[in-house]
Amino acid sequence: MPRIAVIGVGLIGGSIGKAARERGLGQVVGWVRDPARAESCLESGALDEVAPTLEEAVADAEIAFSCVSVGALPEVTGRILAAVGEDTVVTDVGSTKGEMVGRFGDDPRFIGGHPLAGAETAGVESARADLFDGARWLLTPTGVSSGILYDRLNRFITSLGARPAAIDAAEHDAAMAVVSHLPHVFANQLAGQALAGSERLGAVAPSLRDATRVAGSNPTVWSEILASNGDSVSEAIGVAIAGLVRSREVIATGDPEAIREWQEGAASARAALSAVEGAGEATHAIRILVPNRPGVLAQVALALGEDGVNIVDMSLEPASDMSSGAITVWVAGEADVDRASRSIEELGFQVSPAEDEVR
Amino acid sequence: MPRIAVIGVGLIGGSIGKAARERGLGQVVGWVRDPARAESCLESGALDEVAPTLEEAVADAEIAFSCVSVGALPEVTGRILAAVGEDTVVTDVGSTKGEMVGRFGDDPRFIGGHPLAGAETAGVESARADLFDGARWLLTPTGVSSGILYDRLNRFITSLGARPAAIDAAEHDAAMAVVSHLPHVFANQLAGQALAGSERLGAVAPSLRDATRVAGSNPTVWSEILASNGDSVSEAIGVAIAGLVRSREVIATGDPEAIREWQEGAASARAALSAVEGAGEATHAIRILVPNRPGVLAQVALALGEDGVNIVDMSLEPASDMSSGAITVWVAGEADVDRASRSIEELGFQVSPAEDEVR
Repeated sequence: MPRIAVIGVGLIGGSIGKAARERGLGQVVGWVRDPARAESCLESGALDEVAPTLEEAVADAEIAFSCVSVGALPEVTGRILAAVGEDTVVTDVGSTKGEMVGRFGDDPRFIGGHPLAGAETAGVESARADLFDGARWLLTPTGVSSGILYDRLNRFITSLGARPAAIDAAEHDAAMAVVSHLPHVFANQLAGQALAGSERLGAVAPSLRDATRVAGSNPTVWSEILASNGDSVSEAIGVAIAGLVRSREVIATGDPEAIREWQEGAASARAALSAVEGAGEATHAIRILVPNRPGVLAQVALALGEDGVNIVDMSLEPASDMSSGAITVWVAGEADVDRASRSIEELGFQVSPAEDEVR
Repeated sequence: MPRIAVIGVGLIGGSIGKAARERGLGQVVGWVRDPARAESCLESGALDEVAPTLEEAVADAEIAFSCVSVGALPEVTGRILAAVGEDTVVTDVGSTKGEMVGRFGDDPRFIGGHPLAGAETAGVESARADLFDGARWLLTPTGVSSGILYDRLNRFITSLGARPAAIDAAEHDAAMAVVSHLPHVFANQLAGQALAGSERLGAVAPSLRDATRVAGSNPTVWSEILASNGDSVSEAIGVAIAGLVRSREVIATGDPEAIREWQEGAASARAALSAVEGAGEATHAIRILVPNRPGVLAQVALALGEDGVNIVDMSLEPASDMSSGAITVWVAGEADVDRASRSIEELGFQVSPAEDEVR
């Protein structure tokens, strides 16, 4: 069996190990910086073996995954490359790629990677063999990358259940800056700016709650990501500022027709995003008016589950005293919309067109 | 019984009517612009009577509620004031107040209002007698407002189940611009800016999904709101731009320590917002790892409901192929956190610390 090295065994590293072991893809050897964690890594089922040193873990590996935090990736990946021979492909799983490819992209053995799967949770305890099932896994080969090693990595990732795709590292970072890092910057800005007003009104609008959900996310993790992608995020913020300047011009006209046109443009963009998410099948919102007692959400979800409807996303809008409210569920495909609507009506709850919050 | 007039009978007007009738607060007379809708208003139970003209509806009313759309409020409220005598208090329910108080604030009979309850849905069919239970209802009296009429309105709103509070109209609009209107502007900007990147990566990050949920919301409704609050929204956008410029400066340093400090500031603001929302009792996130099959959400929600846990908010993060994922539920108060954690562990699902998305 080929030897697979996993350096850093948290959610991603642990899930690579579990998936590889469950699918019989290789002998998984891991290394963790804190020796006290070795036992729990083995117990979790993520590894066949814990090596006492990084160098021993990667020796003779066919593939070495560098799965430490974004801030630690350069140092750790450098150590891996220094320790392995010509026939080991070395990859990482960080959410930024430019810095890593800048450092190691001229080494034919290094191919940057980024699985779009999983939310960061507390470690190997959350690892799952099916984490990558159907997930996009971006790879950033360069002109000097070894074709044989790239092919090996690509096949392995496919065997894990993921869907690999190649992308230029700079393009990856520019896209991530907009689709993931900028929402965090916006959330941070809104949380700070809206606090005084929310306290004055004694309420948090549902739109604000959604918009600030990721504000202040894990400061250690996010300071490393944003620092690593500083140039692209700065550029994305610049583009956002220019867009907000134009929005302000439109809104300052006070002309409902002009504002309506701008709003309709955003509606089209939102619909197109929704189509990306549904992988071609658009998601549809269904709004349900319910008493907000314990159990009512279960009642709705249970009925949908029994009728085979899978809920893609869900949003709750309790009344201020949480005595009643609305549940909006998103489902993919027209068939599920029909099924869901029937289920809910059979429960005696009212389905209403999912209009948007007005406060 | 006092006569209550409701001019415009949608979600808010209909809910005022239902609440007043159910609580025996008065005889509710309504008027709708489209006579074809009169029958459904009566059938919904929102009104005792539909008047053939606006003027007949408000004649001899103790209180007249102007519940048309924000764009129609000035004209309709002007007609109401022209039709009623000295002893009728006239109020509205629009989500902006400066424009209305600017027009009618020198009339002692007019007191602007804004219930923070309900999401805009399709009309009287969604109206509920309990919509205002415990909800904040802002009133914007001026120096010339009649004390007797203000007292009458205030008492009536309390009788509807709401919690009235007085606020200066300009202060109201400035706060609403930040806590409700700015999140829509941000969502619109993000939806447009992030579309190309999402298509390139073939994925929508959970943070982006949350951040763009209200992008392009009902263009008719929102163009009226934003036009009516153009000055305050423009100012809020200006403050946001200045904040984003500072964020860009911090991020462009590439210094993880500086970025971390900025991120921690946002975390504090988010925690404070959470405390506003929980009306003093902070909401806590609980993250649950689950297979994402139909029915699993129900299983979780049902268990929580059976154990008396009320779910304040919920967020789903399905894997790309929706085969597995995580459910984050927010509950208010430490007692519910403990109860919820126990329930979930009894189901055999894993509760993990609710860290934040890393992509």
